[in-house]
Amino acid sequence: MNEYRDLRVALLGCGSVGAQVARLILEHADELAARIGARLTLAGIAVRNIDSKRDVELPAELFTTDAERLVQGADIVVELMGGIEPARTLILQALQGGADVVTANKALIAAHGPELSDAADQVGAQLSYEAAVAGAIPIIRPLRWSLAGDHVTRVMGIVNGSTNYILDRMDRFGDSAEDAMRVASELGFLEADPTLDVEGYDAAQKATILASIAFHTDVPVDAVYREGITSVTAEQIEAAKHAGYVIKLLAIAERITAADGTDGVSARVYPALISREHPLAAVHEGKNAVFVEAEAAGELMFYGAGAGGVETASAVLGDLVSAARRHVAGGPGIPGTQHADLPILPVGEVNTAYQVMLEVRDQPGVLAAIAGILAQHGVSAASVEQTAAQSTAGEPPRAALVIGTHTAREADLAATVEALRSADMVIEVTSVLRLEGNA
Amino acid sequence: MNEYRDLRVALLGCGSVGAQVARLILEHADELAARIGARLTLAGIAVRNIDSKRDVELPAELFTTDAERLVQGADIVVELMGGIEPARTLILQALQGGADVVTANKALIAAHGPELSDAADQVGAQLSYEAAVAGAIPIIRPLRWSLAGDHVTRVMGIVNGSTNYILDRMDRFGDSAEDAMRVASELGFLEADPTLDVEGYDAAQKATILASIAFHTDVPVDAVYREGITSVTAEQIEAAKHAGYVIKLLAIAERITAADGTDGVSARVYPALISREHPLAAVHEGKNAVFVEAEAAGELMFYGAGAGGVETASAVLGDLVSAARRHVAGGPGIPGTQHADLPILPVGEVNTAYQVMLEVRDQPGVLAAIAGILAQHGVSAASVEQTAAQSTAGEPPRAALVIGTHTAREADLAATVEALRSADMVIEVTSVLRLEGNA
Repeated sequence: MNEYRDLRVALLGCGSVGAQVARLILEHADELAARIGARLTLAGIAVRNIDSKRDVELPAELFTTDAERLVQGADIVVELMGGIEPARTLILQALQGGADVVTANKALIAAHGPELSDAADQVGAQLSYEAAVAGAIPIIRPLRWSLAGDHVTRVMGIVNGSTNYILDRMDRFGDSAEDAMRVASELGFLEADPTLDVEGYDAAQKATILASIAFHTDVPVDAVYREGITSVTAEQIEAAKHAGYVIKLLAIAERITAADGTDGVSARVYPALISREHPLAAVHEGKNAVFVEAEAAGELMFYGAGAGGVETASAVLGDLVSAARRHVAGGPGIPGTQHADLPILPVGEVNTAYQVMLEVRDQPGVLAAIAGILAQHGVSAASVEQTAAQSTAGEPPRAALVIGTHTAREADLAATVEALRSADMVIEVTSVLRLEGNA
Repeated sequence: MNEYRDLRVALLGCGSVGAQVARLILEHADELAARIGARLTLAGIAVRNIDSKRDVELPAELFTTDAERLVQGADIVVELMGGIEPARTLILQALQGGADVVTANKALIAAHGPELSDAADQVGAQLSYEAAVAGAIPIIRPLRWSLAGDHVTRVMGIVNGSTNYILDRMDRFGDSAEDAMRVASELGFLEADPTLDVEGYDAAQKATILASIAFHTDVPVDAVYREGITSVTAEQIEAAKHAGYVIKLLAIAERITAADGTDGVSARVYPALISREHPLAAVHEGKNAVFVEAEAAGELMFYGAGAGGVETASAVLGDLVSAARRHVAGGPGIPGTQHADLPILPVGEVNTAYQVMLEVRDQPGVLAAIAGILAQHGVSAASVEQTAAQSTAGEPPRAALVIGTHTAREADLAATVEALRSADMVIEVTSVLRLEGNA
């Protein structure tokens, strides 16, 4: 039997993820010791209320309300409280004391990642947050290490399970947006206040983290362009299906070149059309997936559970074991690099394609007029389809058109849509969606 | 401008992967230095014949035929020669000299992985081989690090692009096996001698590596049960499609429990049916994917390019940058752990389900007799379908049956098929395939 040294682990928070992390550390103690070469000792679990009900039965003596004291003397601190404070202060204290820190706190990393990374680097400690993006799916480590010698060009992620569940139901079962929301809510896919999910704030936090790592550049969360799914209609889903597309809420981090030649980074979140042939189209229900394009590696995809207590605990444990192995091996934590420091470019500089649906007066010359509006803005049509025409007594006849554009600058496309909206022969622009996932 | 120290990289081999690795090291020198905190200096490229044509133009003075000398004094050795010798001896020399080693040599790792790992551990050097399995796809690192605190229960990989291309053509275009082979050969998906691919030897080497890492146990390559795709017929593909399945050549590493209660590991390669709803079913053409099931993380999938010079070079560079960062940070390489040392169980102990197609005499009592044969072997039928009946003048009428079994021990299923083959009312067993991917 090996004599292992002990590594003191302080656990902050005991919600659905924290309780599973505690259970796994205790239940798999011997096996983890063999894998690490040291024994993980759960020094304590800091909670707000010791008497709260937990998902897992855990020894009562582990619980404390004194997080600050627990952090002192810990070798590794696992922060699963969520929120900005006191998590931020506790993590800074832990790092300054030389402890490694593992966290699943996406809001904190999105808002204060650079500050926390700097604090870790100054003392040679390791800050890890695999669980902060896409739950159980290994994506931070592959981006940071496996692709360390490559140039990532684009990352497109389905990183919010709740909205994917809603859109998937609308696509596969023909649900209305309201029905899909209701089912998602009943099944626990949505918080009591679903704003963070459906308005894309959660995905934007993840886009920040993905863009920062992929491009070695600090990307602040308020630089992420964001649209949620609340305006997506059953009609859009149906039309997308008819055209061979599916609508997904995508968090996109991309290397782009602005019109003036500036190389930079775009980070954005919006519902977009992707081809049903694209690997992301097959990501159903609450699953997550991150599709990565790199100059050498080509196309990669990482798929799995994006949430869930025990699933997310797997990612936390992975970081914890890695930190512990480093303690055993010796040597400092290896810092992330933000050396590239690329400018963050506004969404207007992105190259994308639009699919615009509109109702027009069904009269001669209307297609030529619309083509003229596109051409004025430097946008060319890839396809124009008339989907329906109708006339109501006493009103001029109307036709429904679907215009697919070629790739163009977002700013030009948006200006085109504005011009269409105010054009005489256009009755209404009924849908504007971007098309992503093309080479 | 930072003053970086130099890290001497010795490159062994300059084929399609090696040439791309050399190019990326040279072209991205400044960026790699910023990411690593040290400068990668290509000390030389050892080749058999200096005058051979390369995929990439590289400085002539880098080439040498003296690999042994090149290895001396290198900080990191990148072995891309392939084959067992002299690669093995050179890697051992490099490790014994304290250099880190990065290799894409699956045959060598499958045959001599434990010996090479031991040599690395003895001096605290790092041995990395991400590119040895599934080309550009990060799978070794996620298994070893991201899932380090989890229990992997099963790994199922499409890890041979050539055979996936062949099976995919048969499935999607209705090609015969011969036509699909011919097209694969014309497009360069097959070696001049396709045996390694189509007989499953290549996939078996990868199964060895995946099983060894996933289960912390040395799994020798000759313990991998292996069937190739040469017996897969267009009729089987068609019948699979009709039943909602697709046939894929799977490399499977699984934790199983034998009939006598022994916990152990199964590693096997064979063409199997999987549901068209399974994420692996959507892996087309020459792509690779590895589907991982773990107790906590649930289901994960890693997808991408399994071969190609520049794609594989991405994985090599990832390992190279990681090794270089460790040099900069200090501390020894972190050893893999083979502590579990589980027994390797024979394929007969695997639990799987069979789909058996057979022709029987179309006479009363035949179904009851077949059900009796199954029951004698402890196998129960999940479905029995009569697909066709025919009679030829002068011969007794015959019927075609498709039997799907419930999950049972492979040994019992195989014995059942043997009994069916020799049963009176059975004219011919026309197809036996395993069904994988169920929970």
